[in-house]
Amino acid sequence: MAKKVVTMGEIMLRLSAPGFKRFSQSDSFDVVYGGGEANVAVSLANYGLDAHFVTKLPKHEIGQCAVDSLRKFGVQTDYIARGGDRVGIYFLENGASMRPSKVVYDRANSAIAEAEISDFDFDEIFKDAEWFHFTGITPALGEKAAQLTEEALKAAKRHGVTVSVDLNYRKKLWTPDQAKKVMTNLMQYVDVCIGNEEDAEKVLGFKPGHTDVTKGELELEGYKDIFKQMKEQFGFKYVVTTLRESHSASDNSWSALIYDGNEFYHSKRYDIRIVDRVGGGDSFAGGLIYGLISGRDFKQALEFAVGASALKHTIPGDFNLVSVEEVETLIKGDASGRVQR
Amino acid sequence: MAKKVVTMGEIMLRLSAPGFKRFSQSDSFDVVYGGGEANVAVSLANYGLDAHFVTKLPKHEIGQCAVDSLRKFGVQTDYIARGGDRVGIYFLENGASMRPSKVVYDRANSAIAEAEISDFDFDEIFKDAEWFHFTGITPALGEKAAQLTEEALKAAKRHGVTVSVDLNYRKKLWTPDQAKKVMTNLMQYVDVCIGNEEDAEKVLGFKPGHTDVTKGELELEGYKDIFKQMKEQFGFKYVVTTLRESHSASDNSWSALIYDGNEFYHSKRYDIRIVDRVGGGDSFAGGLIYGLISGRDFKQALEFAVGASALKHTIPGDFNLVSVEEVETLIKGDASGRVQR
Amino acid sequence: MAKKVVTMGEIMLRLSAPGFKRFSQSDSFDVVYGGGEANVAVSLANYGLDAHFVTKLPKHEIGQCAVDSLRKFGVQTDYIARGGDRVGIYFLENGASMRPSKVVYDRANSAIAEAEISDFDFDEIFKDAEWFHFTGITPALGEKAAQLTEEALKAAKRHGVTVSVDLNYRKKLWTPDQAKKVMTNLMQYVDVCIGNEEDAEKVLGFKPGHTDVTKGELELEGYKDIFKQMKEQFGFKYVVTTLRESHSASDNSWSALIYDGNEFYHSKRYDIRIVDRVGGGDSFAGGLIYGLISGRDFKQALEFAVGASALKHTIPGDFNLVSVEEVETLIKGDASGRVQR
Amino acid sequence: MAKKVVTMGEIMLRLSAPGFKRFSQSDSFDVVYGGGEANVAVSLANYGLDAHFVTKLPKHEIGQCAVDSLRKFGVQTDYIARGGDRVGIYFLENGASMRPSKVVYDRANSAIAEAEISDFDFDEIFKDAEWFHFTGITPALGEKAAQLTEEALKAAKRHGVTVSVDLNYRKKLWTPDQAKKVMTNLMQYVDVCIGNEEDAEKVLGFKPGHTDVTKGELELEGYKDIFKQMKEQFGFKYVVTTLRESHSASDNSWSALIYDGNEFYHSKRYDIRIVDRVGGGDSFAGGLIYGLISGRDFKQALEFAVGASALKHTIPGDFNLVSVEEVETLIKGDASGRVQR
Amino acid sequence: MAKKVVTMGEIMLRLSAPGFKRFSQSDSFDVVYGGGEANVAVSLANYGLDAHFVTKLPKHEIGQCAVDSLRKFGVQTDYIARGGDRVGIYFLENGASMRPSKVVYDRANSAIAEAEISDFDFDEIFKDAEWFHFTGITPALGEKAAQLTEEALKAAKRHGVTVSVDLNYRKKLWTPDQAKKVMTNLMQYVDVCIGNEEDAEKVLGFKPGHTDVTKGELELEGYKDIFKQMKEQFGFKYVVTTLRESHSASDNSWSALIYDGNEFYHSKRYDIRIVDRVGGGDSFAGGLIYGLISGRDFKQALEFAVGASALKHTIPGDFNLVSVEEVETLIKGDASGRVQR
Amino acid sequence: MAKKVVTMGEIMLRLSAPGFKRFSQSDSFDVVYGGGEANVAVSLANYGLDAHFVTKLPKHEIGQCAVDSLRKFGVQTDYIARGGDRVGIYFLENGASMRPSKVVYDRANSAIAEAEISDFDFDEIFKDAEWFHFTGITPALGEKAAQLTEEALKAAKRHGVTVSVDLNYRKKLWTPDQAKKVMTNLMQYVDVCIGNEEDAEKVLGFKPGHTDVTKGELELEGYKDIFKQMKEQFGFKYVVTTLRESHSASDNSWSALIYDGNEFYHSKRYDIRIVDRVGGGDSFAGGLIYGLISGRDFKQALEFAVGASALKHTIPGDFNLVSVEEVETLIKGDASGRVQR
Repeated sequence: MAKKVVTMGEIMLRLSAPGFKRFSQSDSFDVVYGGGEANVAVSLANYGLDAHFVTKLPKHEIGQCAVDSLRKFGVQTDYIARGGDRVGIYFLENGASMRPSKVVYDRANSAIAEAEISDFDFDEIFKDAEWFHFTGITPALGEKAAQLTEEALKAAKRHGVTVSVDLNYRKKLWTPDQAKKVMTNLMQYVDVCIGNEEDAEKVLGFKPGHTDVTKGELELEGYKDIFKQMKEQFGFKYVVTTLRESHSASDNSWSALIYDGNEFYHSKRYDIRIVDRVGGGDSFAGGLIYGLISGRDFKQALEFAVGASALKHTIPGDFNLVSVEEVETLIKGDASGRVQR
Repeated sequence: MAKKVVTMGEIMLRLSAPGFKRFSQSDSFDVVYGGGEANVAVSLANYGLDAHFVTKLPKHEIGQCAVDSLRKFGVQTDYIARGGDRVGIYFLENGASMRPSKVVYDRANSAIAEAEISDFDFDEIFKDAEWFHFTGITPALGEKAAQLTEEALKAAKRHGVTVSVDLNYRKKLWTPDQAKKVMTNLMQYVDVCIGNEEDAEKVLGFKPGHTDVTKGELELEGYKDIFKQMKEQFGFKYVVTTLRESHSASDNSWSALIYDGNEFYHSKRYDIRIVDRVGGGDSFAGGLIYGLISGRDFKQALEFAVGASALKHTIPGDFNLVSVEEVETLIKGDASGRVQR
Repeated sequence: MAKKVVTMGEIMLRLSAPGFKRFSQSDSFDVVYGGGEANVAVSLANYGLDAHFVTKLPKHEIGQCAVDSLRKFGVQTDYIARGGDRVGIYFLENGASMRPSKVVYDRANSAIAEAEISDFDFDEIFKDAEWFHFTGITPALGEKAAQLTEEALKAAKRHGVTVSVDLNYRKKLWTPDQAKKVMTNLMQYVDVCIGNEEDAEKVLGFKPGHTDVTKGELELEGYKDIFKQMKEQFGFKYVVTTLRESHSASDNSWSALIYDGNEFYHSKRYDIRIVDRVGGGDSFAGGLIYGLISGRDFKQALEFAVGASALKHTIPGDFNLVSVEEVETLIKGDASGRVQR
Repeated sequence: MAKKVVTMGEIMLRLSAPGFKRFSQSDSFDVVYGGGEANVAVSLANYGLDAHFVTKLPKHEIGQCAVDSLRKFGVQTDYIARGGDRVGIYFLENGASMRPSKVVYDRANSAIAEAEISDFDFDEIFKDAEWFHFTGITPALGEKAAQLTEEALKAAKRHGVTVSVDLNYRKKLWTPDQAKKVMTNLMQYVDVCIGNEEDAEKVLGFKPGHTDVTKGELELEGYKDIFKQMKEQFGFKYVVTTLRESHSASDNSWSALIYDGNEFYHSKRYDIRIVDRVGGGDSFAGGLIYGLISGRDFKQALEFAVGASALKHTIPGDFNLVSVEEVETLIKGDASGRVQR
Repeated sequence: MAKKVVTMGEIMLRLSAPGFKRFSQSDSFDVVYGGGEANVAVSLANYGLDAHFVTKLPKHEIGQCAVDSLRKFGVQTDYIARGGDRVGIYFLENGASMRPSKVVYDRANSAIAEAEISDFDFDEIFKDAEWFHFTGITPALGEKAAQLTEEALKAAKRHGVTVSVDLNYRKKLWTPDQAKKVMTNLMQYVDVCIGNEEDAEKVLGFKPGHTDVTKGELELEGYKDIFKQMKEQFGFKYVVTTLRESHSASDNSWSALIYDGNEFYHSKRYDIRIVDRVGGGDSFAGGLIYGLISGRDFKQALEFAVGASALKHTIPGDFNLVSVEEVETLIKGDASGRVQR
Repeated sequence: MAKKVVTMGEIMLRLSAPGFKRFSQSDSFDVVYGGGEANVAVSLANYGLDAHFVTKLPKHEIGQCAVDSLRKFGVQTDYIARGGDRVGIYFLENGASMRPSKVVYDRANSAIAEAEISDFDFDEIFKDAEWFHFTGITPALGEKAAQLTEEALKAAKRHGVTVSVDLNYRKKLWTPDQAKKVMTNLMQYVDVCIGNEEDAEKVLGFKPGHTDVTKGELELEGYKDIFKQMKEQFGFKYVVTTLRESHSASDNSWSALIYDGNEFYHSKRYDIRIVDRVGGGDSFAGGLIYGLISGRDFKQALEFAVGASALKHTIPGDFNLVSVEEVETLIKGDASGRVQR
């Protein structure tokens, strides 16, 4: 019997200009559906877990498309409330070389942002669940969504569910002050905290080191200091971050760091030719949760997460469509890309 | 020097499922931009007039795409205010045979719906203009948009501009009571009124005859009675309606009726294999305005309008991309569709 | 709680030339997955039933794609056995006007054709089920598949499940003699029998009337005689057939006939502009099952089935992606195809 | 051993707007290669003849693409001279309903229009050949092309080859006076003459009857009179015309008339939903040549030609990609368009 | 009020094989319109200038498409003469790795190549203009085009307009001797001269250094010597060149050199993953003109130009669709390609 | 007169997910046809040889498509037998970066695998032929195919034809033991043997060195030892291998080694950005055969082969569509990828 895991958040309609076209050159948009927590749910379903996604979606056809996109990859959609006015949208232009990808959000007033606590039966949702994952995006959608998140967290804890968060600060959704007020409160429910330096500063108020992420540099030392503070203040079991070195929109290096309160472990580092980097962080969270819930030790879990998310960068769309076997082949050392036949 | 004509309203991003796919089958959406008054502006620019479109669009890239789509076809975009949050969206599924086309609107809170009167300099806009066209959709976007419309109408009248309206009742935007309250007031500025039976009833409160439009039947007599009342009450110079006989989503018949207070004239009737019927009514309005402003008599103008809009049904997208010559060839009697080479 | 329904059979990879291209002109093929019983399962899931599809599919990625295609539309795939070598394939060229659609089969040695009875736990499958549907295609796949079918039928009957069959004679899979031998035996388990004149003759040995189906003519009288014989010999509760008048590859008329042992009822007749006629019969079966299981009387059920399958002809792919509401709108009389907005 | 047939003329690059888009809406053009005589060659190769196409094409890649397009369908390309500057181009917009298809030619200065007689070894070309087909388009390309055509005709006659012509008057290439001067001279070499009323008048100077082809009317009597004159003056073995009734760009009726000097035979008439009507006349010529060369009597040959060309209207591109079997199935009476599986 | 700038030249229809397909594999061509001076005009319009493009285009639909493509991006098209026979065409195959991109020209006899001086009112065109840009391609189109260019240059000088040239030697259009004869004469009107070593030699007769451009090497010293000679002989205000290091069709390095008669300034150097390198040089010219006309000093202007043209290489099509802000973000140092959200 | 060369084997339908999509994301598959020996035949036809391909293909349309794909590029298809049930299929997912390409085979029971010796007239086939090429894939298809291969080899030798083999071990088709049994026997007919270390071990039983190909390392010394043994045991004129260093699915290095019994020659080494690596080895064999048959010495022939196959990696599909001139330009040193215009 597969283990039950739950994620909650927004799933959006993503409209992307085909290939490397700019928006103004596009007479069609590629359509996928995705969003931080939904992406994690798909990863977990792919790995064979009993993954449930909680959200609210309009009753109309576009809302149904979002449901279908989850069902297709085996995510359980029974806990999705139906109602509200709109599906959040984001427009994406794929960058290349020194031209960055561009995202235009049109997500205000989405059904989940305006959902009521009464839309969900959290005791039913968390019954027999082992893990709950959320991100800092959901509470950033507005006051109602923040309350909804806390309600879910309380229920999760009531049911003894392990909780992970991806801090994911979004400056277009709220200010650091707003974020801190809401998020520091929610940290009490969290066991595993994923967040990079910017998140740590903007969301939790920890002073960053000197990492200049736009330069592709990397300062592990700065992270160690922050992680210790985070662990101390909030009692997280694990503190984790991905480490992205952005050489260009086409080439990144990618690794991760985990701290268990005792030891810092820096994963293997991958050089990636990027196909689609959206959802890279979510695929990392999905890999980490799977790694931990499947009983791997925290270092193996981190390697699984980094390998899984490296692969995500080679797959179009928000979702990470890889199997446990594919991730394991990679982390065991075969990054040669030889044809499998 | 081409005559200056002005239209004002919303231009939306239209996302349509390719071919005859349903939304849930589509992993791309065809992208065009369109909206009642924008469509009329494109028709008028195609016919060689100095057509200006007035709206408000966000400063971001999707807003710019809407501007570009108008510029491409020669519409003047200098009066477009930039700002606000979003471009209204509608999703379209093309029907076939007995399966109707389906539209899902996501247009609330668009930039034009929330525009201020101070965003526009109407005296500049209507300076030297000869015609102003609007539809019942714009005032239906909300109270601010209704006020904006009246402000524009007052300015148009100040500058001696002829005004046409397409009543275009939209039940998803307002109730008949709301429509009546706003629209009957605006009729004082109108010279040419386009509207079908449903519009006449829902927007202006005239009791419909027995036309059952879903059955593809047609009751000219009922229209005559209503048109007389409309003329009497509001003093329109012309009252006009298109007459659509919907045999199926693939086949319609199409004609129109005009009343000049004296005579009823029923146009030639076309049997149409439909490629894209969205914008059919707008292309009719565009054709009628061009017909009248170019000095044709009202019967010839009506024939031009009907021919133009019949052609629209064979062209994908909201815009009617036909020339005066193409319309004239059709209305002079060549509907044989022989290859032109 | 939605009612549990089960269908069993083959789901194939369908590769179709885009638009009206011939195979030799195509440098891509459109990809969907489908097959008689799978198509029925999708219809039933769309109507809100708890629809389960039973088949066997290889463990490889193409097998998984077939599973995904079912999950996407809400079909339960837990009873699908995984293993075997290949997914059956059919190539499709869309006809137009007097050029017929062309199908090239490449389905030999598919996983389900070579499945073992031990691949399935039929008592689990039929537990709490209310309906089981199969077609004459599955037993035609070979001796093993014929035995598998009978095993499933026995289990269904053990669990008190209502059984329907669509006779669906396929001359490329077996001869009339082979068909008769296998199928007449299976009729003992059947409650509702769907089949046209050709099926009745080739599969069950009933002498056809003079209907020349290639001429688009229709002889209801001939059917009545055959239906009476079928009812008499096999004790079916209902005998049903669709009546297709093939004017061309682009235009068909479509209706159906049902006999309850007492009364013949001929449904409303639809004139259809065809988008994709593959799966038309399956969507009829799906509609009929839903109509009967939802408690409609047999005439209403037939009208639902005919309306549903008329709509299928306007939708690309094998699956009928329509809702109960859409079917009801049509059968209540609105075939005008007016835009729904 | 397949019979050797030769056609000579221009093969152009055809660039067509996808679907029903107008040129200005297209950010890609569909690419095929075609031209009157090349289209005939492809038909004949499809029917199993040893079909050779004679032309001149530039050495560059686009020239090679044209060669490849012929080789793909089995046409022999050994007699194609390579050199010259450009491949002729035509742009095509597909019409629908009352909107006609539109062709924009850009064919001046093509390699074949500027080819020299010395580019070809006509004695080699016509060695063992049984049939030579040309159209009125080639001599219309210019004086050199007209001389080239006569040189080819002389060689053909030297080798006892049967000659057919499709008069194909093109008003954008020459005037009636120019056409008459060149073409009446070439008629001495012709055995089978295909041409409609307009061709007969513009190219050969025969006074037309009252057929108003744009109205879709048909006056067989007028044709009979002209055919008799043509036969008398030029001694053709057969005079033939297709009879197109253009109801719209989407719907045509299609039949043909042949005269053997003794008897007029009017073929079966087909109602066609048009997919692509370009090359319809060429596919008729191809069918007629095959019909006659395969030993059918002239009435059967005409029926074959009409059936073949009716099918062409359902196939995208210039080429008629049908087999002898497909044509025979149609002319034997099955126009029902039933799926062939 | 935006500054008025004018460019004059040819705009062609570009037909490119999709992705990395070879011509012979393509059954569609991607369609854009472009050409040296038109590309510069689009850049300038994007940067907010009042950019006018002067050319001649046929009255037919393909000519109109070229106009539409310019209007879409805000280029003023009022000075475009309409007439002539054809739009020049070029076919493009995208290279990859060691396979070079391939261009096949089909541009002879285009409307602008055969335009008359009387087609244009140069005093109207240059009234209030601040800048005129042309390239060595236009005079290479033929004698008439060369005369037209000189006529434009005289008028520009009459109106006190600053003139820039991009030498752009095209060996398929003329010989070095022809180029020298025409171009050295035109240099008297030029203020800013852009040209690489090959241009300097073939067009102006300056002896090149030892730069072997096919090896991706770079010899700044050789350039310095030539630039001094050019400055001395023609009195240019600035002499400028881009420096392309072609590692492969997929990877180039890109920088530029400017000389103001006093100082040599070598810009920052970018390593580029190429999406589409056509129009790279034109986007450089556009950036340089904008940089200078906006009041930046010549070094800043060069950096703007190099940054702008580096970005062009990441955008499909001939046009450089970037904003001033995007260029500035890049040249200020952020080439990390991080997602902008 | 071009030299006659013959290859024999299977040509499959290749269905690939577009771009970098995974199978489950694809609603269309790109379609090409290819297979080891067919790919070699296309290379040879492109280089101007009289290339014949021998296989068996079903009579249906998909079989014909495979024939058409060969004819298009000038391969002679007269020796192809028609019959049997199916065309072998393989599904391809393009890898990127660390994600490998994935191939799913569905090729059992293809027409060629079940062909009879009597389907072919080998004396006719090898009459006047100069070269015969086969691969280890064909005998691996089954016992009948192995016998067919030997029959062909005997006939080839009877006619004094030079024979080359590409060992091409395929573990999904047979075991090393089966391979050895069949292949060591066939080596008596072979003059030129192409095979890498894995082939040498699995097919011929030579003990491999320590090359760990998944690590992109390269051990030339190990090869030298094996090549000497191979030469000694089987008396090959040349022993050859390609040397692929797989850095990732996106980047490979590529060179080759040849041994003439006297001297080892290691070719130039290319760094490749991969567009499509399928058929890379076949294009090498094609280049080598052309190099040797055209009279180049064995080192020049090897350089031609390596250059040709490096180019193949930049071209989508199985076939290598390059000309002799393109290969020569590359091997003469221009790998700069500069636009050719």
